[in-house]
Amino acid sequence: MYDINKVREDFPILSRKVYDRPLVYLDNAATTQKPLCVLDAMREEYLNVNANVHRGVHYLSQQATDLHEAAREKVRAFIGAAKTEEIVFTRGTTEAINLVASSFCEEMMKEGDEVIVTDMEHHSNIVPWQLQANRRGIVVRHLPFDEKGDLCLDQLEQMINERTKLVSMAHVSNVLGTVNDVKHVTTIAHKYGIPVLVDGAQSTPHFHVDVKELDCDFFAFSGHKMYGPTGIGVLYGKEEWLERLPPYQGGGEMIDKVSWEQTTFERLPFKFEAGTPDYVATHGLATAIDYISALGLDQIATHEQMLTHYCMEQMSTIDDMRLFGTSAHKDAVVSFLVGNIHHLDMGTLLDRLGIAVRTGHHCAQPLMTRLGISGTVRASFALYNTKEEIDILVNGIRRVSQMF
Amino acid sequence: MYDINKVREDFPILSRKVYDRPLVYLDNAATTQKPLCVLDAMREEYLNVNANVHRGVHYLSQQATDLHEAAREKVRAFIGAAKTEEIVFTRGTTEAINLVASSFCEEMMKEGDEVIVTDMEHHSNIVPWQLQANRRGIVVRHLPFDEKGDLCLDQLEQMINERTKLVSMAHVSNVLGTVNDVKHVTTIAHKYGIPVLVDGAQSTPHFHVDVKELDCDFFAFSGHKMYGPTGIGVLYGKEEWLERLPPYQGGGEMIDKVSWEQTTFERLPFKFEAGTPDYVATHGLATAIDYISALGLDQIATHEQMLTHYCMEQMSTIDDMRLFGTSAHKDAVVSFLVGNIHHLDMGTLLDRLGIAVRTGHHCAQPLMTRLGISGTVRASFALYNTKEEIDILVNGIRRVSQMF
Repeated sequence: MYDINKVREDFPILSRKVYDRPLVYLDNAATTQKPLCVLDAMREEYLNVNANVHRGVHYLSQQATDLHEAAREKVRAFIGAAKTEEIVFTRGTTEAINLVASSFCEEMMKEGDEVIVTDMEHHSNIVPWQLQANRRGIVVRHLPFDEKGDLCLDQLEQMINERTKLVSMAHVSNVLGTVNDVKHVTTIAHKYGIPVLVDGAQSTPHFHVDVKELDCDFFAFSGHKMYGPTGIGVLYGKEEWLERLPPYQGGGEMIDKVSWEQTTFERLPFKFEAGTPDYVATHGLATAIDYISALGLDQIATHEQMLTHYCMEQMSTIDDMRLFGTSAHKDAVVSFLVGNIHHLDMGTLLDRLGIAVRTGHHCAQPLMTRLGISGTVRASFALYNTKEEIDILVNGIRRVSQMF
Repeated sequence: MYDINKVREDFPILSRKVYDRPLVYLDNAATTQKPLCVLDAMREEYLNVNANVHRGVHYLSQQATDLHEAAREKVRAFIGAAKTEEIVFTRGTTEAINLVASSFCEEMMKEGDEVIVTDMEHHSNIVPWQLQANRRGIVVRHLPFDEKGDLCLDQLEQMINERTKLVSMAHVSNVLGTVNDVKHVTTIAHKYGIPVLVDGAQSTPHFHVDVKELDCDFFAFSGHKMYGPTGIGVLYGKEEWLERLPPYQGGGEMIDKVSWEQTTFERLPFKFEAGTPDYVATHGLATAIDYISALGLDQIATHEQMLTHYCMEQMSTIDDMRLFGTSAHKDAVVSFLVGNIHHLDMGTLLDRLGIAVRTGHHCAQPLMTRLGISGTVRASFALYNTKEEIDILVNGIRRVSQMF
């Protein structure tokens, strides 16, 4: 049984007040709160173990290395990767995508070659490709979505041609909440020998992800959006791809031998990990994985699906409500506008009621352009949110609406 | 008065035991321990404030943004930069150097152009340039050092020619401890209009750095080597340089407007900060800066100079001792070998006595090649180390030596 009150006790920040009102934190797609066990684990490591990892002969360094590499194994199991060699630690999803954009384009793409993204991408899966377009003359194409917020997957195969070298797509839209059918995309792309990168920033917190089942070639996600610390993320890549790609950044950790004449690189995954890794954050991320695994990702998914359905239902009873993203496959994100009320005004006034939502373009301006709007108000849910909080949100929206 | 016992109380890990012996932590050039105030500040932020920064209208997001931007101002003041626009947060020194290597070479260098580094660089200031050599055909030249470990600065001017576009150098060698005369280098390089990047990873923890006084064009350093958290670092760049360079990574935070046709970038420093920043670590770094500033960098420098001199003096009484790095301008690093004892054996046996030192090439293989050795044992000091710990080290070395 999913005991929401007990769960909430693990997140002390949820009992704080804002403007003398109980905090209703509905900005989870931006970042989640952290359970005490994650904070304790990191503090404990700093207080008892802290030392730089790898190559250290001394006791603390070996302990810190063990924790760091155990975190890698935990991540591997969490997403169902075959080997720890396929798990590269990055600063976050954005860096992971930039790594692939840089190294993949360097090795595999020339002027005129094409990458296909979608109209619902976060800027982190658009701008890295645009930078490569500027640098190397590659072409960025984008798959549209329909009025419900579902990708027009029937158009994908027509977009593929002999210049198509990669498909890069969000697993879950951070604005629409649409859960995209990655397996469908990898099946089509692989028919043509084209690899697929998946931005999993908005999926890993919400449901069980298995990269082998998705059969994606790269998968990127962030720790801080799934109850882990800031500053840590993961790039999964199939071994054969990671082997083929050149290193991204140079420095310590990623080399085998360095000389002025010839430098050789470390084996996977270290080839892609230049500099001191954020070994405390990896341990924090591992602890977050333990936490959500103990609660059960299926239980979390069920709870959040209940919240999403309830919220969509309640929202639709509000006058002049426009909901963006009404796919049947929808996750814990509800984007909306009410009448002519500007998203920023709505967000500001909800904040005064203690309700934290995000407003604006949500780092997805091309999606906004496609919808013909400048932004939305977005409520996004996590494992600790409640039906009561959604009632407070809905009442809040009604109250704000009446002021206009 | 510098009260070392009181200082040590701020670092609880220093009272732990290793193999039933008191820990003697002399691996500070790899990473330093963290004072309680840094751990408290980060935990406090997670427990009371945590929210994604920038663009958030809600209360927590604004509080988190205020802390994050206050940290930037703290860093600015710490290194004497003119403006916060010149302070870019990175994952660490390595990423900061990679950022410059990538963006500077893209904008300013073509095949055959030269960058000058030195023979005492860490791999993080060699391999990024070698990657650019592979990608763009630039040439990496290296300034030698003499038998004391001082750079042969008299040779610098001869190495400069019309193809020289950048000088990139360590402020302090992580192996030899030499404090390089950056001001001398910037004066020469600027005569020819050549900018200078300084790797400050080993200087910022030990003495007062003023980038305006050094007149360097870029300055990179890491939080975790100066009592701050892992996963955060800084790139300082003169505004006119940062303005000229193209963005490094693409994603959220660093854009002005994104469309399929044309994307424009944010103003400085955000242009170089793609993705969610590690806003908890920046607050941790700011707290570390407060901590060392309160102790006084001059007091810290005096204490560490005393330790370094005492250590060098004591070491020289050991039979068959070879000390690497005997410059008159030497900082808190002592590298050595004793007779034919392999550095790894020495390190392993010292560890059994509770003494944490680092062994090996210290991510500086070209330096080792220059010295004709495969590695050293390295003891490196921090503000909390004591003369007694150096006695334990020296006695430990004697004891190990007798076993061979």
